[in-house]
Amino acid sequence: MFEANVYVNRRRALLEKMAVQSAKGIVIFLGNADAPTNYRGNDYKFRQDSNFLYFWGVDEPWFAGVLDLDNGDECLYGNDVDIDDIIWMGPQPTVASKGNAIGCAKTLPLAEFDKAVTAAVSAGRPVHFLPPARYYNQMKLAQLTGIPNAIVRKVGPIAEGGASEELVKAVVALRLIKEECEIEEMDKAAEIGYWMHTEARRGCKPGVLEQEIVGRMEGVTYSKGWGPSFTTILSQNGETLHNHSHHQIITPGRLLVVDAGAESNTHYASDFTRTYPCSGKFTTKQREIYDIVEQANELAFSLTKPGTSYWDVHCATVRYMLEQLKALDFVRGDVDEMVACGISGLFMPHGLGHNMGMDVHDMEDLGENYVGYGDERQRSPLLGMGNLRMARNLKPGHVVTDEPGIYFIPALIEQWKREGTDKGFVNYEKLSGYYDFGGIRLEDDVLVTEEGSRRLGPYRLPIKSSDIEDIMSKE
Amino acid sequence: MFEANVYVNRRRALLEKMAVQSAKGIVIFLGNADAPTNYRGNDYKFRQDSNFLYFWGVDEPWFAGVLDLDNGDECLYGNDVDIDDIIWMGPQPTVASKGNAIGCAKTLPLAEFDKAVTAAVSAGRPVHFLPPARYYNQMKLAQLTGIPNAIVRKVGPIAEGGASEELVKAVVALRLIKEECEIEEMDKAAEIGYWMHTEARRGCKPGVLEQEIVGRMEGVTYSKGWGPSFTTILSQNGETLHNHSHHQIITPGRLLVVDAGAESNTHYASDFTRTYPCSGKFTTKQREIYDIVEQANELAFSLTKPGTSYWDVHCATVRYMLEQLKALDFVRGDVDEMVACGISGLFMPHGLGHNMGMDVHDMEDLGENYVGYGDERQRSPLLGMGNLRMARNLKPGHVVTDEPGIYFIPALIEQWKREGTDKGFVNYEKLSGYYDFGGIRLEDDVLVTEEGSRRLGPYRLPIKSSDIEDIMSKE
Repeated sequence: MFEANVYVNRRRALLEKMAVQSAKGIVIFLGNADAPTNYRGNDYKFRQDSNFLYFWGVDEPWFAGVLDLDNGDECLYGNDVDIDDIIWMGPQPTVASKGNAIGCAKTLPLAEFDKAVTAAVSAGRPVHFLPPARYYNQMKLAQLTGIPNAIVRKVGPIAEGGASEELVKAVVALRLIKEECEIEEMDKAAEIGYWMHTEARRGCKPGVLEQEIVGRMEGVTYSKGWGPSFTTILSQNGETLHNHSHHQIITPGRLLVVDAGAESNTHYASDFTRTYPCSGKFTTKQREIYDIVEQANELAFSLTKPGTSYWDVHCATVRYMLEQLKALDFVRGDVDEMVACGISGLFMPHGLGHNMGMDVHDMEDLGENYVGYGDERQRSPLLGMGNLRMARNLKPGHVVTDEPGIYFIPALIEQWKREGTDKGFVNYEKLSGYYDFGGIRLEDDVLVTEEGSRRLGPYRLPIKSSDIEDIMSKE
Repeated sequence: MFEANVYVNRRRALLEKMAVQSAKGIVIFLGNADAPTNYRGNDYKFRQDSNFLYFWGVDEPWFAGVLDLDNGDECLYGNDVDIDDIIWMGPQPTVASKGNAIGCAKTLPLAEFDKAVTAAVSAGRPVHFLPPARYYNQMKLAQLTGIPNAIVRKVGPIAEGGASEELVKAVVALRLIKEECEIEEMDKAAEIGYWMHTEARRGCKPGVLEQEIVGRMEGVTYSKGWGPSFTTILSQNGETLHNHSHHQIITPGRLLVVDAGAESNTHYASDFTRTYPCSGKFTTKQREIYDIVEQANELAFSLTKPGTSYWDVHCATVRYMLEQLKALDFVRGDVDEMVACGISGLFMPHGLGHNMGMDVHDMEDLGENYVGYGDERQRSPLLGMGNLRMARNLKPGHVVTDEPGIYFIPALIEQWKREGTDKGFVNYEKLSGYYDFGGIRLEDDVLVTEEGSRRLGPYRLPIKSSDIEDIMSKE
């Protein structure tokens, strides 16, 4: 939690951004409820709604907040505890003291929040809210506002009666540019991610069950932070981008993709990917591809700075990879034409990176186009390019991931071959020797600065193929 | 996952138990959806609905099942994957093959489930469902059946139009008695819990942050199983029964309560509590109370067998504790009278234990009284006794926790003193020296057998005060 002023300033800035759009009425923020795993009362580890946390700071379930756009009033809603709560959960600070900690003088019991919302609805005042991530909040907002469940998550101008586009734009504008206090927390999240990945690399030994490594590395995130910032990807089937099964044994000759990050206790994310040779040494075939990805990661980093867009960085990076794949005879023909018709999507069906902050894909639930594109450009329809989550002109305070990859996905290759998607650029004969290769991805977290950019965290995970082999031989 | 026959038999047994109650119509089971942490797509680790898992076995999101009570038909609903899914999640077995694995010949896409339910509703056929734990399922059931959201979780005879009491009773009768294949899994969950707690005990050293220990012990559960079976309680404020904050430093002279368990990869739970002296040695004051609780745990275990009820075991155990507390002059007067008016609730405001299975409080969402009481007896209104979750006559195949505790809760003591709740039995002068004592709880998991009972797991965590001191001095 930050100083009270941080939250006061954010709420003030939000009021200003709403005023610029001539928005009237009230803005409501629902904090998260507890989320049951198998029964109510046996809950997943509590995670506050990121937007609530950003403006209201209270990291506990069953809170809400209201900002009045017409008179600037604000109120934090939550319930004080009774003797039963004290027996089970211990003495707790009052809601008033929690309001005080975030510079909000007015606090009321949670039931008053419901009344405030229904009163505004009855009076015909606009009620601005963000599309809710959680089903409970979706249900609750539909109940309170009378808006059908399916519309509650649909973002559009407030006049259309769903989630408020005006509010989404205002929040995105604020959260995209990280404050100094946030950057400090992101450096901490990156450091936890460093230790998490170090545990993974040390665990990557033939004969070990993948799940064993996942448990140990996630244990690090619980010891030092909130936990993993997303479900850990650790797989020898790295060609599957989000592989969440961990039932295989580490086998010499294969590659292990580890894509994982930590969330700090203050709920800022990190997200790194490394790819290791299971035997400790890359084969020639593996090293050829690995070095292309490693150089692509380096190139993207060097291009990441104010004055360019992440769209352009993505294009330059996939162009580089296609050049190198051409040199190895995976593709044949004019590289510019290949970039233009999206041939890189066969090898890297995802984008170069995404925004990161309190969410590992920052604000993804507000709509990827609002977050990563804004009014600056249109999303591409191509595979790969079309999956780019962040395309904006870069500004100091942006945090993005730099995560090129090359994968050999048999089902996708077969589909392209069958449907002629490659327009004759692809050498399928060469590819036929790579169906059991897997995939390689290498990812760092990058802060855009005034001068250029810097990688987050106090240390960088080893990445050069020679460094990886060297350190693995010693561990 | 078990053999197909296990699921076939369970569904058949359910049909029989429904027939005995003359139930007509269909029984529907909604599997769980993914549960978002901070945005849709960034989900908590998937946990299937326990009832769905019990009857349908499929451990993946977005499945459902229907049993027809009138003709015995059954169908598993789920969607096969497309090329996009393969790129992101890898090739997946078909829904038909998943049906095959649980002995269900008929499978259909998930959208057909919605149609089957709405068709039954339109035709006026009874639709039996269990009260949903998750908000998504609550929302979905309300939509499909037209039953108001608030009523969907209300259990009563099917004619009353909410969740089906007939179905609840049938499911409770089946799940309460553990099959051999389940007991094997519970022994495995207990073994993971053993290693989890061993990690905790080894980490209990002055100067260590509580969170550091929690992370390491939870890491063990992720390495060897699904994860923690509930949010780990690890606290030097052990007088707070469910303390989930871990920001304190281990401090010599205090007691550390560790109440935690693991869930196996097949989703069976364990649940153990141990209490450690932070300095490695108990003080005389601590040892006096500790030994009472340890003997109470032992007494309860020795009484746990067919032919008695857990209600009686609870009563005998708190009676023993009151006798000992009387010997130490915490209470004065007739012990039988104290038991009758619930004086033990001041020291142990919870019950002796609960049922355990796929849920750590087994089937809690179906209603604690259906699960732990049935028609056998009425719940007590007294503090402590009234919180007893399991009171049934014991039968082979029951799994219960044995978890007596003694706590000194300043807010509760003050309330009793103020309100005269103790009826003169309590020696507040003696208690005034224990406001900074904390609490002690000692818990094992016990299977009721034909002959008596046995503790689950291949090893028992050290529990005698001398054994604890001995092992801590060596670690």
